[in-house]
Amino acid sequence: MPQPPLPETHIEFLSAPNPSVIGSVEADGSPHTAATWYLWDDGRVLVNMDATRKRLEYMRNDPRVSLTVLDKDNWYRQVTLRGRVAEIADDDALGGIDRLSEHYTGKSYARCDQKRVNVWIQIESWYGWLNGQPWT
Amino acid sequence: MPQPPLPETHIEFLSAPNPSVIGSVEADGSPHTAATWYLWDDGRVLVNMDATRKRLEYMRNDPRVSLTVLDKDNWYRQVTLRGRVAEIADDDALGGIDRLSEHYTGKSYARCDQKRVNVWIQIESWYGWLNGQPWT
Repeated sequence: MPQPPLPETHIEFLSAPNPSVIGSVEADGSPHTAATWYLWDDGRVLVNMDATRKRLEYMRNDPRVSLTVLDKDNWYRQVTLRGRVAEIADDDALGGIDRLSEHYTGKSYARCDQKRVNVWIQIESWYGWLNGQPWT
Repeated sequence: MPQPPLPETHIEFLSAPNPSVIGSVEADGSPHTAATWYLWDDGRVLVNMDATRKRLEYMRNDPRVSLTVLDKDNWYRQVTLRGRVAEIADDDALGGIDRLSEHYTGKSYARCDQKRVNVWIQIESWYGWLNGQPWT
């Protein structure tokens, strides 16, 4: 599986507001998947979640994650990023979720009382597919 | 997390040719994710893959999987199915991949020399999201 840095074509793809699914591992070793916003952040990936999300606990317990990003206009184009959680930080000022919300919706995040958490993922390897063929 | 049977609304959603990402666990315990065709098959889920895919080996080793299905028209509607691989069978006559290909593309599968394998997943639990709220 290729390692970073990714080709410019793939970085351009990852920089768009695409749907994605993040995989983590529960304490009993079973896989967990959930759709998520993500932000390509200069070689790392930022995700952000409600502080009560179970997957936050899973990632604290085992930092290994896998993120599959689908092209919003053609889901037969995909990039999967494998990596590890490098940093977890409370998003007290909601700067992280605002960046994500503006990227995906063009608007800042609708405030509510729930605490949010930023999670930065360091990419270790990746693979791509385009219309049924490897996208390298 | 709710258990089957799923509500009719969710079965209708799962019966459409939506994009999905399947999560499995590698031998070293790390999560693996990949985009996939799936078919809602009367309470079970059928996926099919090239016999050389690594995730087939992962699923033989640990049958626990998680499949997140995104609405093709609004990816903020999602259902995640948790379950176990109940059956793995060579798709020698390509009947499985033809069913999937017809579901997604309206055409039978483009024949090639690669062997294919059917994998049926038994659903054990599920959860849904719709526009940022639980979809129950």
